[in-house]
Amino acid sequence: MNAHERMRAALTGQPVDRTPVWFMRQAGRYLPEYMEVRSRVSFLELCGDSDLACEVTCQPIDRFGLDAAIVFSDILTIPEAMGCPVEFHPGKGPLLPQPIRSAADIAALSMPDVADVLPIVPETLRKFAAARPDVPILGFAGAPFTLLCYMVEGSGSKNWLSVKQLLFTAPQAAQRLLDMLADMVGDYLKLQLDSGALAVQMFDTWAGILSPEDYRRWALPAAARAMSRVQGGPKLYFTRDSSPFLDVLAETGADAIGLDWRVDIGRARAVLGDMPVQGNMDPVALYAPPAEIRRRVRRILDAAGPVGHVFNLGHGVLPTTPIEGVEAMVAEVKAGPSTPVP
Amino acid sequence: MNAHERMRAALTGQPVDRTPVWFMRQAGRYLPEYMEVRSRVSFLELCGDSDLACEVTCQPIDRFGLDAAIVFSDILTIPEAMGCPVEFHPGKGPLLPQPIRSAADIAALSMPDVADVLPIVPETLRKFAAARPDVPILGFAGAPFTLLCYMVEGSGSKNWLSVKQLLFTAPQAAQRLLDMLADMVGDYLKLQLDSGALAVQMFDTWAGILSPEDYRRWALPAAARAMSRVQGGPKLYFTRDSSPFLDVLAETGADAIGLDWRVDIGRARAVLGDMPVQGNMDPVALYAPPAEIRRRVRRILDAAGPVGHVFNLGHGVLPTTPIEGVEAMVAEVKAGPSTPVP
Repeated sequence: MNAHERMRAALTGQPVDRTPVWFMRQAGRYLPEYMEVRSRVSFLELCGDSDLACEVTCQPIDRFGLDAAIVFSDILTIPEAMGCPVEFHPGKGPLLPQPIRSAADIAALSMPDVADVLPIVPETLRKFAAARPDVPILGFAGAPFTLLCYMVEGSGSKNWLSVKQLLFTAPQAAQRLLDMLADMVGDYLKLQLDSGALAVQMFDTWAGILSPEDYRRWALPAAARAMSRVQGGPKLYFTRDSSPFLDVLAETGADAIGLDWRVDIGRARAVLGDMPVQGNMDPVALYAPPAEIRRRVRRILDAAGPVGHVFNLGHGVLPTTPIEGVEAMVAEVKAGPSTPVP
Repeated sequence: MNAHERMRAALTGQPVDRTPVWFMRQAGRYLPEYMEVRSRVSFLELCGDSDLACEVTCQPIDRFGLDAAIVFSDILTIPEAMGCPVEFHPGKGPLLPQPIRSAADIAALSMPDVADVLPIVPETLRKFAAARPDVPILGFAGAPFTLLCYMVEGSGSKNWLSVKQLLFTAPQAAQRLLDMLADMVGDYLKLQLDSGALAVQMFDTWAGILSPEDYRRWALPAAARAMSRVQGGPKLYFTRDSSPFLDVLAETGADAIGLDWRVDIGRARAVLGDMPVQGNMDPVALYAPPAEIRRRVRRILDAAGPVGHVFNLGHGVLPTTPIEGVEAMVAEVKAGPSTPVP
């Protein structure tokens, strides 16, 4: 099988020769070749230049021989395109200096056509397909609830007080913003599939701050509304906290579920039925000795089974991750299933 | 029933007239009377003076008429007593300026007799029992793994890289420290029961950073080792992330489980069987309008059922929490079960 066939088969629950492997934030600061590019341009400049974005997207593919690329971009391009400015300051998380706190703030946002205002990612997808035709590429977007978290809070947060206050005291305004975001996210994911992405992943990083009741009330229907606008390839849904919501994740309309590391992948599969899964090694395990990394990879491969599994970390790779740890992980996945595929 | 009978019955799965209620960090910065005391003394001075600690322990009891007090203290008194200094700086989390990173660091720690080095909490428990004989009081300690997190990292952390590196690269040293902490924690909880606490709670705040495999390997046996040294009253075990570990929490040896808000309490009860539970409202829900707070309290009471449940938040009350929100929550719990107890 080539990488295109392997990824598509894994994401649709068809037999594979071995489990495919890529990992979140695989193009990033742990790579010297990425840091070399970043020594010349800022993160935002990199996201805004499809040649450079394509270059760094290729880097982990060329170094590790992965089964999929993910387009280099940031989830906050959508809020910015809607009129909510975003800043990045070195060593800190994103900052949105004009947070959305009221119905009036929401009314002032716009809903432009994604193809008009977000051309860089489609361009990058096309350039990658020309540069590395042997390797499939994934598109992505933030999930509506996670984008709402950043837009309302204005940054990352410990308790997400402003976000939940909006939900609990102004539910109609919150719903309006989630609906707007869902439509933008859905259209953007569709655009990426139309631009050559083999599949798309929706990152609901902060859904796990909600109780199960609030998840079902807010984050889940917003994700489902976005997913319903997307056709043309498998759709992945990832949350940073999979465990509390396993029983309802199918309702997102996703074709496959990205799991964080705080859930047993075997147990997740039992709950999710025949839904393909992606994940889920603890990113910090890449700092362990190679033998321990290989043991952990093997444990996940065995628990997930050989069909309907894409190997990945349970969260993005960390900036100080040792390259040798990544190499050990990739080699063990590529060693294939523990028992021959029948 | 009086509050002593009600709490003991709920924690042991016996019938109650109504669900008892207290909440984590109930003595704290959201109370003007607490801030008045803190205008005169620092947090550490407050923890070190049993008269003042008793005074602030009484404050939420007197204001809200709660069914239980929890002794005012901090989980980091044990690391400090073992030789790992702890600092608190206004507006920041705890700082341990000499973090434990090696077997040599661990060997330099001591294991003094808890009754000799930690006399303030036992004194406070006795003073509270004399001051408010109608109200039971809970003792507490940090769980071994959570204390290890602070001691190794030196502060709170986003990724807990140093902690996990110790686990993954120096497992014998990590195990040695966990064993030491487990024995200290167990003895300290036993001392608190001997000093008049009706029950004790072990806070495993950071256990949820671990994969289920690592939880079972590290945090769970350490908690169980500590619990095995404790007799004389019900033992509660709380994690900030209950959902991934529900199926193994009984193995801690706890008599009851404190649940965070990211788990459906009805589902948790189904997994935990007849184990009493405590929780689990989102602390941020206290910022909602009173009618919404009452709806959420009622939903939890109904899902948990009238037997074997202590009402609580799913995490500590936040410093800016509105008093009226707390009042609405307490009043709704005190309104009793939705249907009369048979």
